[in-house]
Amino acid sequence: MTADKDYVLATYLVHGNEDFHKKAEGIAAGLTVGTWTELPQEKKEKMAAHLGKVFQIQELPPTGNGVPRALLTIGYPTANVTPDFPAILTTVFGKLSMDGQIKLVDLQLPEFLLSQFPGPRFGIEGVRRLLGVQDRPLLMSIFKQCIGLSLDELEEEYQKQIDGGVDLVKDDEIFFRDEQAPDIERVRAFERRNRQRQERTGKKTLYAVNLTGPVTRLLEKAKRLVEAGASCLLLNVTPYGLDVLHRLAADPDINVPIMAHPAFSGALYASPRHGVSSPLLLGKLMRWAGADIVLFPSPYGSVAMPREESLQVADYLREESVHRPAFPAPSAGIHPGLVPLLFRDFGIQSVVNAGGGIHGHPQGSTAGGKAFVAAISAAVGGRPLREAAADAPELRAAIEKWGVAEG
Amino acid sequence: MTADKDYVLATYLVHGNEDFHKKAEGIAAGLTVGTWTELPQEKKEKMAAHLGKVFQIQELPPTGNGVPRALLTIGYPTANVTPDFPAILTTVFGKLSMDGQIKLVDLQLPEFLLSQFPGPRFGIEGVRRLLGVQDRPLLMSIFKQCIGLSLDELEEEYQKQIDGGVDLVKDDEIFFRDEQAPDIERVRAFERRNRQRQERTGKKTLYAVNLTGPVTRLLEKAKRLVEAGASCLLLNVTPYGLDVLHRLAADPDINVPIMAHPAFSGALYASPRHGVSSPLLLGKLMRWAGADIVLFPSPYGSVAMPREESLQVADYLREESVHRPAFPAPSAGIHPGLVPLLFRDFGIQSVVNAGGGIHGHPQGSTAGGKAFVAAISAAVGGRPLREAAADAPELRAAIEKWGVAEG
Repeated sequence: MTADKDYVLATYLVHGNEDFHKKAEGIAAGLTVGTWTELPQEKKEKMAAHLGKVFQIQELPPTGNGVPRALLTIGYPTANVTPDFPAILTTVFGKLSMDGQIKLVDLQLPEFLLSQFPGPRFGIEGVRRLLGVQDRPLLMSIFKQCIGLSLDELEEEYQKQIDGGVDLVKDDEIFFRDEQAPDIERVRAFERRNRQRQERTGKKTLYAVNLTGPVTRLLEKAKRLVEAGASCLLLNVTPYGLDVLHRLAADPDINVPIMAHPAFSGALYASPRHGVSSPLLLGKLMRWAGADIVLFPSPYGSVAMPREESLQVADYLREESVHRPAFPAPSAGIHPGLVPLLFRDFGIQSVVNAGGGIHGHPQGSTAGGKAFVAAISAAVGGRPLREAAADAPELRAAIEKWGVAEG
Repeated sequence: MTADKDYVLATYLVHGNEDFHKKAEGIAAGLTVGTWTELPQEKKEKMAAHLGKVFQIQELPPTGNGVPRALLTIGYPTANVTPDFPAILTTVFGKLSMDGQIKLVDLQLPEFLLSQFPGPRFGIEGVRRLLGVQDRPLLMSIFKQCIGLSLDELEEEYQKQIDGGVDLVKDDEIFFRDEQAPDIERVRAFERRNRQRQERTGKKTLYAVNLTGPVTRLLEKAKRLVEAGASCLLLNVTPYGLDVLHRLAADPDINVPIMAHPAFSGALYASPRHGVSSPLLLGKLMRWAGADIVLFPSPYGSVAMPREESLQVADYLREESVHRPAFPAPSAGIHPGLVPLLFRDFGIQSVVNAGGGIHGHPQGSTAGGKAFVAAISAAVGGRPLREAAADAPELRAAIEKWGVAEG
């Protein structure tokens, strides 16, 4: 199904004993101009520009239990929507989201409409330029725990992480109550550590500070953090709404990369028969909205996503488009022994992202980072991990604890 | 499970062959302080205030296919959250939403935290006061179609609807491209019609104008609409995010009722094993966020919700709480013949809401409204609908077309 310049194309996976043609026709009319067949001729002429259109009905083999299934692609006239997520999501999956076993699995916008979404300001190339790293996957470390720690304690944890050689450090996404270490103070303290690191080693770091609080103050807060020196922002996109990411990314004063966390997204994508597919939500929509780096479950960790879906998320983030490609960061339960698999699946243009796999290293967080650095270097060089571990004691210790995953 | 003053209690329905006790313990620690058992004693003391706690594990009978199920209730310390939806949803269902077959089915906040959410500014009593209607369910009419119509055409449709005796009229929620009849002009025109109606008949009307556009301009836009005379606002809450409703409801300058549309909510609630339950989302959370009137699928119409869920939504909207009760508006495919069932289920403190059941009346929209007025009057008076139809030709015509539903 190729894009059509006059329509937003939405594809749905439908389960049920329905007449799929009738269902598709019902959606095309019901979600645009209401009833069609009963309209008088003069009204039909006027309304034709707003009427939805059935583009494709593809019956699929029934489920194991014999439930019929089909993919329906409906076109919604671009004349019905404004270039924002609330308008598009309400148009294509407003009432329809409540109507039986139906899952929104794809969306395609014509280029003129897609271009009105910001897309990543930095994207892969921009983030690499900021870091000065070109020829390997990036390495990110997650604060294993933030709540309840003082600024001094967090700063110490921060230093341990950057000493391990990571390129990015992110806040814990559940870090809201930060009275003991307010976001703006963390930014000042950690960015000072980043500058010291750069002076000492030439290596740069991005610190993704968690952007929190009322939606009405979020842009102003982001600007204050950027003014204070923030190098990257972390946003829990789904709880805030995609339009919030859109407006942050489109704001010229917020000129740092934005990292999208998938918190709460499973509530939308995890069901096989309802909601919105993960590649659409975490791949396409996050990129349209302007995420430079997107976290999502890898196929391998503690919170896993089926491999095909996880790869499709990454493909959507990086495929040819009017927007810059964004970094996939397959996450959750990542340890050094998984790096070869991640590299095989996601390639150089990806972020290796670890929390427990860094902090849980037997020799501590700095050694944890070093083990990943060695693992990434081995993967890029095509060297088996166990062989590389011979020269890298931190990697050896990591492998002793977590093993090396087999593909 | 009663509320605990130190914890946000979240209840999850979990399906799967897991050790439910282990799962619950894993959530309580993993979603708060990370690992617990490995922490040194001095850190444990410091972190205890932030550690989650297992409150209840209730095993349920397995599904028909023998899949084990349980309800897990986990307490998250209030010391971990700020009083806003993004913080609470990310804390209780951030990463966890992606972790297997798990559905968030209930949330309970201690009173001090709940009180920091605005709740409905008007609620049932306030909306009734604005309308001057006390002793029957309210009647709302939905514009059957808005896109593509001129202001004159819409005004004509508006007049037909209020001539039928409705209390409220709402925009089509998919009305975004309104260049031919901009929101502020609709507000001016329709509110003038409302004033004329009141002068002529003493009857008042609320017009719910669809609030659309970038989230960053929504509050300002709402204020402009209120200044222009808007009597009610309509919001597609889920696509915008619950925090947007929260901020609208909490703003002292936006002093009109807010109507919450459930568009896109099915993407969150419709799956039996994932997402967020409909009573929690459309009942509790919408009310906490400040909706005065909440639309949701009735058990009976074209887009239906299981009866038990639909009743639970209404119960949550009206139960005893620190917040004012909000109006349930069970919707979708409602015709006059359903009014007795709706009245039996939802009682006087509800809104009867119809689109096709008004506009599809054989004698037009005004007669459609009158048929509902007669049906509501009959239901409240305990009179069978077919008997009442003897004195009400519009109701008779409606029953001929749609019949009378049996409970």
